[in-house]
Amino acid sequence: MNKFTTNLRYFIFSRFYILDKHVLRGFNVNQSFSHCYSTRKNVSAMDKVGSIKRINNVNLYTKRSHTCGELRRENVGQKVTLCGWLKYQRMNKFILLRDSYGEIQLLFPDIGGQQILDQMPFESIIEVEGTVVLRPECMINKNQQTGDIEIEVEHFKMLNEARDNLPFNIREFQKAKEMLRMQYRYLDMRFPEMQKNLRMRSKLLMRMREFLIHNHFIDVETPTLFKATPGGAQEFIVPTRFPGKFYSLVQSPQQFKQMLMAGALDRYFQIARCYRDEGARSDRQPEFTQLDIELSFTDVECILTLIENLLSYTLSDDYATIPTHFPRMSYEDALENYGSDKPDISFDLKLQNCTDILKKSQHIGPIPDDFGAYLLVVDQKQHQAKATLTKSIKDAHLQISKQYQSAKFIQFKVLPNEGLSKLEKVFGTREINDLRKRFPVEEDSVLFLAYGEKHEARQLMGKIRLEYVNYLENKLGLSGIRRKGLSFLWVIDFPLFELNFEDGSLQSAHHPFTSPNLEDLPLLDSDPLKVRALAYDLVLNGNEVGGGSIRVHDPHLQEKILDLLGIDKGTLQHIIDMLGSGCPPHGGIALGLDRLLAILLNAESIREVMAFPKTFEGRDPVSQAPSEVSEETLNLYHIKVVNKDL
Amino acid sequence: MNKFTTNLRYFIFSRFYILDKHVLRGFNVNQSFSHCYSTRKNVSAMDKVGSIKRINNVNLYTKRSHTCGELRRENVGQKVTLCGWLKYQRMNKFILLRDSYGEIQLLFPDIGGQQILDQMPFESIIEVEGTVVLRPECMINKNQQTGDIEIEVEHFKMLNEARDNLPFNIREFQKAKEMLRMQYRYLDMRFPEMQKNLRMRSKLLMRMREFLIHNHFIDVETPTLFKATPGGAQEFIVPTRFPGKFYSLVQSPQQFKQMLMAGALDRYFQIARCYRDEGARSDRQPEFTQLDIELSFTDVECILTLIENLLSYTLSDDYATIPTHFPRMSYEDALENYGSDKPDISFDLKLQNCTDILKKSQHIGPIPDDFGAYLLVVDQKQHQAKATLTKSIKDAHLQISKQYQSAKFIQFKVLPNEGLSKLEKVFGTREINDLRKRFPVEEDSVLFLAYGEKHEARQLMGKIRLEYVNYLENKLGLSGIRRKGLSFLWVIDFPLFELNFEDGSLQSAHHPFTSPNLEDLPLLDSDPLKVRALAYDLVLNGNEVGGGSIRVHDPHLQEKILDLLGIDKGTLQHIIDMLGSGCPPHGGIALGLDRLLAILLNAESIREVMAFPKTFEGRDPVSQAPSEVSEETLNLYHIKVVNKDL
Repeated sequence: MNKFTTNLRYFIFSRFYILDKHVLRGFNVNQSFSHCYSTRKNVSAMDKVGSIKRINNVNLYTKRSHTCGELRRENVGQKVTLCGWLKYQRMNKFILLRDSYGEIQLLFPDIGGQQILDQMPFESIIEVEGTVVLRPECMINKNQQTGDIEIEVEHFKMLNEARDNLPFNIREFQKAKEMLRMQYRYLDMRFPEMQKNLRMRSKLLMRMREFLIHNHFIDVETPTLFKATPGGAQEFIVPTRFPGKFYSLVQSPQQFKQMLMAGALDRYFQIARCYRDEGARSDRQPEFTQLDIELSFTDVECILTLIENLLSYTLSDDYATIPTHFPRMSYEDALENYGSDKPDISFDLKLQNCTDILKKSQHIGPIPDDFGAYLLVVDQKQHQAKATLTKSIKDAHLQISKQYQSAKFIQFKVLPNEGLSKLEKVFGTREINDLRKRFPVEEDSVLFLAYGEKHEARQLMGKIRLEYVNYLENKLGLSGIRRKGLSFLWVIDFPLFELNFEDGSLQSAHHPFTSPNLEDLPLLDSDPLKVRALAYDLVLNGNEVGGGSIRVHDPHLQEKILDLLGIDKGTLQHIIDMLGSGCPPHGGIALGLDRLLAILLNAESIREVMAFPKTFEGRDPVSQAPSEVSEETLNLYHIKVVNKDL
Repeated sequence: MNKFTTNLRYFIFSRFYILDKHVLRGFNVNQSFSHCYSTRKNVSAMDKVGSIKRINNVNLYTKRSHTCGELRRENVGQKVTLCGWLKYQRMNKFILLRDSYGEIQLLFPDIGGQQILDQMPFESIIEVEGTVVLRPECMINKNQQTGDIEIEVEHFKMLNEARDNLPFNIREFQKAKEMLRMQYRYLDMRFPEMQKNLRMRSKLLMRMREFLIHNHFIDVETPTLFKATPGGAQEFIVPTRFPGKFYSLVQSPQQFKQMLMAGALDRYFQIARCYRDEGARSDRQPEFTQLDIELSFTDVECILTLIENLLSYTLSDDYATIPTHFPRMSYEDALENYGSDKPDISFDLKLQNCTDILKKSQHIGPIPDDFGAYLLVVDQKQHQAKATLTKSIKDAHLQISKQYQSAKFIQFKVLPNEGLSKLEKVFGTREINDLRKRFPVEEDSVLFLAYGEKHEARQLMGKIRLEYVNYLENKLGLSGIRRKGLSFLWVIDFPLFELNFEDGSLQSAHHPFTSPNLEDLPLLDSDPLKVRALAYDLVLNGNEVGGGSIRVHDPHLQEKILDLLGIDKGTLQHIIDMLGSGCPPHGGIALGLDRLLAILLNAESIREVMAFPKTFEGRDPVSQAPSEVSEETLNLYHIKVVNKDL
């Protein structure tokens, strides 16, 4: 800085330059901090209490008169005050000033003092007063919103100088590595991409609130420091001053929202922070946000309609076409046709069941009871270009198939002179002739086949279906396979229970408060795995973005289900008591907002739509949390660290 | 239940009664669960996507056609479906049905089947279909909103039977003890008082959001799992899978919101969950909610105006008169005139400084440098009735005075023949004559005097001022002392530092990120306790309901302040780096919403405006959290409990 001390006064605390006083008058620091440009504007913004007059109030309560993005040809001649980041300077004469709302060119008069411009680090914070002038015709930049004009600077102030050598350049989003972006999140946020994501998040969440409040839902804040929930995900624990006693951080407000229903707060919502300790898993976060909804005297149909209407309203301002009804598919149909309980229906390619044909085969050893065989044919005519099967994609598929040990997997390209004959030696000639009759396969198609344990065979084919289409799109650059836009889908009729493969016990497919379909009540004792739940998942482009259920409201039924699940009723006595105290039938849903927003905003991961995400290991890259705490704190909470050197 | 099995069919799971089928046709359970009354209505509620038609949509997405509160004389003849709680029955013929929106009388036709009415426990959930009929003239109840009509029941269904002997009666709010109310919060919420509190909370928070979103503030969710903040309140810790490493639960989003400013999210707000482990303290909660706001390129004046406008808008719908500007008072004036940094200015009674007179006294021993003497005179004429000074209130005052060991306290009633003569022997005749001249005291007034160490003397008088006025109002029933309504006040010009009396070190009066008043920068080295902060507190009726400051944006100044505070700069390196990366001048505020709402809603404690508060010890009365966790969980987090039997 030394070389500037001759032509500018430099205050250590205010970082305040005054250029040659004949040209640029300096501000008095205290004046500029005590005078509020907006006091005057505030009054006009509130004509009378309670009614907000529609003006551009993004500048209210600040010292700027305009943002860097809003000035146009029609403002020429106006005196303005602008604040922002020094994005760029050139010729020691022009500065490109940036804020969250745009960019504008500043023109400095041609005097000696301006020599400092090229010494000011990019990203420094500056404030200027000046006049809006038209650019010379040859300088007009049609690609810039403010490209018709520039600001002839009269006063200039350095508000906060940036250091040189920031970790990455705010002009090159693509070049910044994600780990560095997360560590210097306050730099990363200056990229237009992050600005858009976080501003859209705010907007869409507010649209959701508007819809719900308008529909008489009540926003209720429920605690996050709670008691461990039996079963389910690993919950973080919080030691307390009571020796040996811990809170658990809630994984959802499930129990509270049911208590609200018993409490006659019959239409509840909350944009709720939830916690889950899933260890190191990509694209999961230890804390996440869900839109949590519950209402009384309702049923499945009502809730699905509510969410369809909610999303229509939320997205209508920014997305061209949102269907007012989403298709519905049973869990069984989803697995049968798509090999997934969250099928991506943005393309049609369905699995084809050939179980009845192939199970006659004498060649494949003993046929198990739960045998299934599924075919997936990618017809090259449908997909505009030759569907190829390179070694690399075949290997990727084989890698996937290894996760399904009870299913066998075959893949090949149907050559003109071969057809399906390759399959004959596997299954026998008669079986393959039957197959040819039922599923005429065009030459040059690519064929996938999985057979074995039915659940595994179709799940494997579900994975192959996605992997191969991703390959066609991303590696081969084929377009038009997936339909553009948002493919919402309801998956319904989930089973109430599933088998814990480790010990053969029953566990909840959703959670223990989910109501069985009342038609299936007689099966609870005789064949519990056949009992359907009144549960539903919302799927968007093949991702689960929400789920919910009608809840059990009968205390006796709740006790019976806890018994079947082997859950100690004592840990949920408060819920059983609550159901028996006059609790309406009720149900609800939770939408995972991070995932939903990531898809809506075309983001690569949920981290792109969160202000301060943690790494996949759960570390905070900004502050380096988690970190060690003092002995004193550990003593306060009656705990000791063990295995510290692990 | 056995005695009913003859005249009704009883399904164990559906709790579903069918009365005599000639009179009341029963529903089929599955029909009633699968048919959505509201599907039709939903369509009309959304004429086109994005625009909500104004209809009464509190019944959308439910099986009811109307709430229990909305039917009137003009609905006579309509077929309706109502759901709710059985509040009361009489004559085995009438049921009073209650929901969150009101009450309505059901009339059952006179047949044998209805004998069961008097056997149904209060608070059971029932559903009826019927016709709105006019009550006979003599039965009209003008005190009930639906008192002109009743419902002639055609179909009836018991949706969920309540058990007998609930812990308290929903008809008698005053009789329910708070501990029981908290334990059975789902019953407590059925009281109109709790319904009002929680519904108003939702409404007022939404008004705040509307105002802020309209003013281009962005709602950003910041993490709660973070790193310990040096200094400040005790933070809860959360063990992780990294041995010896802990998150801390944030006590406020302070650091994150400053990073957002550096990140060009220049207008931020959040209704944020915060955590503080303050042990057992009455009227505090381990988790609480604040409205958190921060903006760039602003100053003190702008932020105070912003909050005034925000509260005007928020409250304008429900409170008659909210001033558009709140008075401002310096910290020094607040202490000097009211003996408090959060003065209750809803009544005028001010302290009177008589230091200069009494410090001349030869009778009271050596006069310290920081001597102060304050008088408080309660003139009985001003307060409409004789201000008395009973033994009990005198004792209460003496109890308070014991907390201020460096101040002496005198209280007496000014008798007609005595006047101030009592004071002569304490201070000397000349001093008291001077006192008489400057402060003419009416007979029958009550006089309080404190002298000694100035800060203690005036704080003591501040406490006495409140205690005595509470006594006049609550014990003597004097009205008109406090002005009705909301007395907002800004307290400004706080000191930047205060002395840690334990070790004589400096500590932040607010927090280490608070900017000094730039006029006082030269004092930072020479006389740091004299440096004023650019900080402000919002006070409502004598309660601190918010506070904030302009923050330090210069990294060098921030380092200097951390040095003065003796805080290790390493723990806040990310903040210093952030300030040096191009960070705008910025400031903000946080409003404590629980306290603010408790005052606005006239609630006795913040627990009355929270859905599920914890006890003052931090226990959850519903689930009995905190509780023990498994060895397995402790091992996962590499901790061990010590002193378990404390």
